[in-house]
Amino acid sequence: MSSQDQREIRDLVAAWMAATKSGDVDAVLAMMTDDAVFLSAGRPPMSKDEFAAAARKMAQPGGPRFDGRNDIREIVVAGDLAYLRGDLTVEVTPPDGAPFVRTGPVLTIFRREAGRWRLARDANMLAPAQS
Amino acid sequence: MSSQDQREIRDLVAAWMAATKSGDVDAVLAMMTDDAVFLSAGRPPMSKDEFAAAARKMAQPGGPRFDGRNDIREIVVAGDLAYLRGDLTVEVTPPDGAPFVRTGPVLTIFRREAGRWRLARDANMLAPAQS
Repeated sequence: MSSQDQREIRDLVAAWMAATKSGDVDAVLAMMTDDAVFLSAGRPPMSKDEFAAAARKMAQPGGPRFDGRNDIREIVVAGDLAYLRGDLTVEVTPPDGAPFVRTGPVLTIFRREAGRWRLARDANMLAPAQS
Repeated sequence: MSSQDQREIRDLVAAWMAATKSGDVDAVLAMMTDDAVFLSAGRPPMSKDEFAAAARKMAQPGGPRFDGRNDIREIVVAGDLAYLRGDLTVEVTPPDGAPFVRTGPVLTIFRREAGRWRLARDANMLAPAQS
């Protein structure tokens, strides 16, 4: 069921990761709904505008570099709504420091708008990687 | 749209909280799908069996007491799938210690099975409450 939708969402996740690595903030913003909300522990929910401001700051020359992957565990689609569960690994290299790794589960909601899947809600449970 | 479904999911969340407070583990288990997965930072995803074992241990006499509330921010339904975003506050009173509070966002997936909504995936981003 809906394997075409699942493929489109996988492609979106891959494109999101590539745009994040390359610092293409506009491309990332185009992949989310205008009402997108980013959730994580210990801070208030982040809107698209707040996400954009933080991402533009980090994408400046001299900012940290990112690498990472999202190991997708499942994608379930119902009409124009879908959720994805994955295990995310992010490696951050600060400009003047040693790289560090954060890992953890993610639960992400996608919504189809005008025929195109976009990220709408993201629950990020990253923590320092267990060594 | 789907206000009846939203009401049923609100009732489920209230019943879940009440059963957790009273230590009625069987009632909580009946409100989740058999493939339920619980996600949080810093530990592997937890299955229904693992949840049950942990809950039964905590519900024993002399275990911690729980209080809490889930301030629901939105419930979105698509067919037999729904997600809820809320702000959860949990107060835990250990048998031999001072109560402590954890707060944070939750993103929860519900699935309708045989006409009844059940919790299927839960992303819990609780952190020590900011004082």
